[in-house]
Amino acid sequence: MTGHPTTAPPRARRSRIGPEREAELYAAVMDLLREVGYDALTMEAVATRTRCSKATLYRQWAGKPELVATALRHQKPVTLDRIDTGSLRGDFNCLVDQLDDHRMAEDTALLRGLAHAVHTHPDLLDALRRLLVDPELTGLGALLARAVERGEVHPDTPALAFVSHLMLGALITHPLIEGTPADAAFLRRYIDSALLPALGV
Amino acid sequence: MTGHPTTAPPRARRSRIGPEREAELYAAVMDLLREVGYDALTMEAVATRTRCSKATLYRQWAGKPELVATALRHQKPVTLDRIDTGSLRGDFNCLVDQLDDHRMAEDTALLRGLAHAVHTHPDLLDALRRLLVDPELTGLGALLARAVERGEVHPDTPALAFVSHLMLGALITHPLIEGTPADAAFLRRYIDSALLPALGV
Repeated sequence: MTGHPTTAPPRARRSRIGPEREAELYAAVMDLLREVGYDALTMEAVATRTRCSKATLYRQWAGKPELVATALRHQKPVTLDRIDTGSLRGDFNCLVDQLDDHRMAEDTALLRGLAHAVHTHPDLLDALRRLLVDPELTGLGALLARAVERGEVHPDTPALAFVSHLMLGALITHPLIEGTPADAAFLRRYIDSALLPALGV
Repeated sequence: MTGHPTTAPPRARRSRIGPEREAELYAAVMDLLREVGYDALTMEAVATRTRCSKATLYRQWAGKPELVATALRHQKPVTLDRIDTGSLRGDFNCLVDQLDDHRMAEDTALLRGLAHAVHTHPDLLDALRRLLVDPELTGLGALLARAVERGEVHPDTPALAFVSHLMLGALITHPLIEGTPADAAFLRRYIDSALLPALGV
């Protein structure tokens, strides 16, 4: 970023892989994840499928956990930091608009596999938290801070500390209670009936 | 129940296994579940460990999914239907009082394994819903109905339809967001800050 290309560590250089090639690589990682799961996915298989050398892969990503976490971040259907509709309800609904029911069912299966894998792979949990969860929590914090600034939510509202639990909880518990993945219609009802009332909106 | 012992189907007869023996069997099933997981657990192993014939096991339970679901129901730390403190906040806190932090961490690991197993064993999902989830939802419904009757919660409160998602969500999302199993202190804060405000209490 501060521009010392000759002294930068190799991993910071992106000269070998352009954005299009990167997107191809991430798509291949997602395909392999769906096909064989995290445990059976190898850097070797990614290299073979993408006709990329393993050396190039390791130059760009520290290892399998980072490659998988970055691929997930690249493919994720929702980007919180571009949402700013002017109202909290609008922001939450914009978030749901970005979700695709079919894609969501597919992702649920993928995330379930990863949720299982993190318990035997602490390095995967670490990479996912660092590259995927923490940026989302930061984005959510900014969205809520704007609602407080606008005067929509009182700054002392206790539920502000639990919005990530409330949102993620709706996605995860629906398959357990209703037996099917959460869909956009359910999430809209949940936002209006439970999430916004908890925030006093 | 209506008492025709001579015509009752064999599975309804409990004559061969008394309540103490049943408790022993359930404890052995839970031990095996923790040791080897659902996939590797066999009726054979339960029979061997409890010195019980497989015929006796199958006479009492239709199969492995029912035996596991019934063992879980028997061992579960919280019994909703005995809770009636006279206030909704009291009822929810009484529920948390019944939880034991160490036990909860242990159960989280066990439930995680089962949550994974249900996706490849629809018969297990069916047995868990029938024997474990549905009775809990009924108990929760009764608890909420009493709060409405007492006038604590307005009968039209939209969040009433989402209390099970809100409660289960707190338990499941804590390990994902904070990296540790939910404990009683977190649940008390969540109940006061998010659950009760959503219900307008």
